[in-house]
Amino acid sequence: MTGLHAFENARQLLKQLPGLGYRSAERIALHLLVENPERLQPLLEALRDAAEQLHRCERCGNLAESTLCKLCTDPHRNGHRLCIIEQIPDLLALERANAHDGCYHVLHGKLSPIRGIGPEQLNLASLEKRLSPNSSENIEEIILALSNDIEGEATCHYIQGTLLAAHPAIHITRIGFGIPSGTGPTYVDPTTLKNAIAARRQYQ
Amino acid sequence: MTGLHAFENARQLLKQLPGLGYRSAERIALHLLVENPERLQPLLEALRDAAEQLHRCERCGNLAESTLCKLCTDPHRNGHRLCIIEQIPDLLALERANAHDGCYHVLHGKLSPIRGIGPEQLNLASLEKRLSPNSSENIEEIILALSNDIEGEATCHYIQGTLLAAHPAIHITRIGFGIPSGTGPTYVDPTTLKNAIAARRQYQ
Repeated sequence: MTGLHAFENARQLLKQLPGLGYRSAERIALHLLVENPERLQPLLEALRDAAEQLHRCERCGNLAESTLCKLCTDPHRNGHRLCIIEQIPDLLALERANAHDGCYHVLHGKLSPIRGIGPEQLNLASLEKRLSPNSSENIEEIILALSNDIEGEATCHYIQGTLLAAHPAIHITRIGFGIPSGTGPTYVDPTTLKNAIAARRQYQ
Repeated sequence: MTGLHAFENARQLLKQLPGLGYRSAERIALHLLVENPERLQPLLEALRDAAEQLHRCERCGNLAESTLCKLCTDPHRNGHRLCIIEQIPDLLALERANAHDGCYHVLHGKLSPIRGIGPEQLNLASLEKRLSPNSSENIEEIILALSNDIEGEATCHYIQGTLLAAHPAIHITRIGFGIPSGTGPTYVDPTTLKNAIAARRQYQ
């Protein structure tokens, strides 16, 4: 491989990372290869070290140092309340907000026929195991905290129709939709407004 | 280092890359370590390979496979017209636009006292060499294509006052400022409008 092919290869692989496009991948490649080459080696080592020490929690799919993650082994979490999310950043956001005191289950994606993501690509096998009568977890409520979009909707539907139908005793909820904090009807899009009206609640 | 420290370390180093903030660095780290770990090794190898084969062009600072880059050794470029830019992405943008037929000089930054970037941090020594009477280049025009901001302004000023003052025969220009393609006065900010009025030209 010539040097410029090697560059093109690095740029292509950077471009596959979430949030990076053609230009931002190019900028990062040039930064690491020409502008600040002293930063490359520490970054490669840091990623390799982290990869060696971390993996998916076998139970919930979160980042873990051992078989189970810190949240799954924390006795202070409410283990009967399970929040299903698409990706680890969702978990981190909910934790930063102190919004949920129970455990999580990370699907690592949502159903998306267009992008070829079907049920097999999602972390559903271990969810089924968690719900089975043999499980020690005894889950009472499941909060579906998937995205407020068509794919999130389809994923909720699928989970309810397949996994949860077999467990009628479990209370299933979905996180609320509506106007985000700090703004008003003037500033949100029509779909959000419709959701907000549909999600209206008794005012006391 | 424990696993979570290793993760924090990787995230910190990713955050130093251009265009990445706390959240985007976290997202990329999780992507490479947990969500799509099969992508990590090819990326590490691609960056290492590219770093081994590429470096800065000794003359202009561009990405190069050998001592000089492809543009510096291209006999079809106008070697008498030199375009001074801040960073390699500027060069790539000008090349994509087919906007400049001469050679380039990449400063790898602009003067910024706030961020501790002085003349020593810029690629100015080789620019001085290119302008010296011993150089084979015989530069006739310099186009200052630095950013339209205070730091770009200061950098142009510095280059003119130090390097170029010794070469009165060289014709110095700065790229035009004004309303970008595809929009009109209503949609640009007041500074751009003032620049555009100040940069008005004879209409024929």
